Amino acid sequence: MTYSELTAFIRSQRSFLCVGLDTDLRRVPQHLLADEDPIFAFNRAIIDATAPYCVAYKPNLAFYETYGVKGWAAFERTVDYLRRNHPRHFIIADAKRGDIGNTSTMYARAFFEDLDVDALTVAPYMGRDSVEPFLGYEGKWVVLLALTSNKGSADFQLTEDADGTRLFERVLQTSQDWAGEDQMMYVVGATQGERFADIRRLAPRHFLLVPGVGAQGGSLQDVCRYGMTDDCGLLVNSSRGIIYADATPCFAEAAAAAARALQQEMETELLKRGVIAA
Amino acid sequence: MTYSELTAFIRSQRSFLCVGLDTDLRRVPQHLLADEDPIFAFNRAIIDATAPYCVAYKPNLAFYETYGVKGWAAFERTVDYLRRNHPRHFIIADAKRGDIGNTSTMYARAFFEDLDVDALTVAPYMGRDSVEPFLGYEGKWVVLLALTSNKGSADFQLTEDADGTRLFERVLQTSQDWAGEDQMMYVVGATQGERFADIRRLAPRHFLLVPGVGAQGGSLQDVCRYGMTDDCGLLVNSSRGIIYADATPCFAEAAAAAARALQQEMETELLKRGVIAA
Repeated sequence: MTYSELTAFIRSQRSFLCVGLDTDLRRVPQHLLADEDPIFAFNRAIIDATAPYCVAYKPNLAFYETYGVKGWAAFERTVDYLRRNHPRHFIIADAKRGDIGNTSTMYARAFFEDLDVDALTVAPYMGRDSVEPFLGYEGKWVVLLALTSNKGSADFQLTEDADGTRLFERVLQTSQDWAGEDQMMYVVGATQGERFADIRRLAPRHFLLVPGVGAQGGSLQDVCRYGMTDDCGLLVNSSRGIIYADATPCFAEAAAAAARALQQEMETELLKRGVIAA
Repeated sequence: MTYSELTAFIRSQRSFLCVGLDTDLRRVPQHLLADEDPIFAFNRAIIDATAPYCVAYKPNLAFYETYGVKGWAAFERTVDYLRRNHPRHFIIADAKRGDIGNTSTMYARAFFEDLDVDALTVAPYMGRDSVEPFLGYEGKWVVLLALTSNKGSADFQLTEDADGTRLFERVLQTSQDWAGEDQMMYVVGATQGERFADIRRLAPRHFLLVPGVGAQGGSLQDVCRYGMTDDCGLLVNSSRGIIYADATPCFAEAAAAAARALQQEMETELLKRGVIAA
């Protein structure tokens, strides 16, 4: 998906919500466990219920790998279902990969050729040649970790170099030589509040993938105040707050209501900042 | 596997070789493609041929994920085969994972409970709470990226902070508060030569997992000169140089010969430094 297709879809949906598919069989409604593929059955119901209110889905690979072969099969079915039934929705495989060149090439092939997702999260620690193999696919995106939402983000990401540049800032600066805003996004945690202003000084137009609203305590209003661009420039993710809104047989309706509530807050922000018209 | 079990096995094998199982169906002998599980058929032959000469195996997850469900099944069969037939060999899942706490917990469960590998490679960028979920398993290890073998390692890992500490040194220092040398190893590329001396000043006894000998051009002698401890303290990986030594039906014999040649070089180094006796 191109930058302009993504921004057009955000405007038509009046939403920049990404629904995180962190599907955990210990938390899904118990009646689904009788299904032959309960992970996919849950995802399909969540997807169909929330699709009108979001623009992206983000399956978190850890939750699929933990179920081994069955988990991978459910992940593949989920991507295939999205591609067939909701082809305008952006799919982010949240895998945080990144390795030496020949290994990253194998990961790129897995996610962008065999699976056909739109984007993959990638860790920057190993540098340019670990990221470049993901950048050889037109319309496919790297979502590079910059400043994450967890407490441990302070351990290394905030380290200042001799010039006073923090590591996350160095990642933002250096990686802009690798690709432009049409192929690169950055992960910035919603819990980082005013640091969004620092991010926007270095990456004024790039899309930011923002986890951490909801269960992790980040504020949607702060994220928009400091992070929204003229084209929105944000994909705000919510996982647990939507997909586990309810564990009864009405779970999909509850997920839809939770997604719709976030969409409405997002529409207000998009209107307030002139990204869409009333 | 405990630290003392690992060092005892290195002494009895007179080797610190780790064989990297980067299995790529475009490079395996073509007669294997007729097998119903060619990835596993290749791995089993390589394992049985090289087991006398090595102490560890390192399947690289990218190479399995690229084949989707079939690749995951082959990965699981490989781990299971090693556990049953070569129970003293150390198994490292080279996955370079690391995410927020609840996600790392899922990865830890996948690799340490369901699959029962001994160690997992982990990226440090997200800090302490992204690594700690992997440290809750007795006898299981985190292999943290410190200074990698690729050119891009210079992009961020060598950045100096205001005190002149480079990022890889900060990773070594900070992470030693998280676990000791009985649960933590570090990835240091063989191409880093004299920087092994800097590593050993900060981590005098930790095991180092060393990729980059062979195809990537690192020197085994330099690695041993600067990196070997009284307990060896090294696992040196070779992937392509062993498993693709030959693409004929005699591939397993060629892999054995390549592994044996490295084992003999390693035995010389272990003798020279008094880790084993003649």
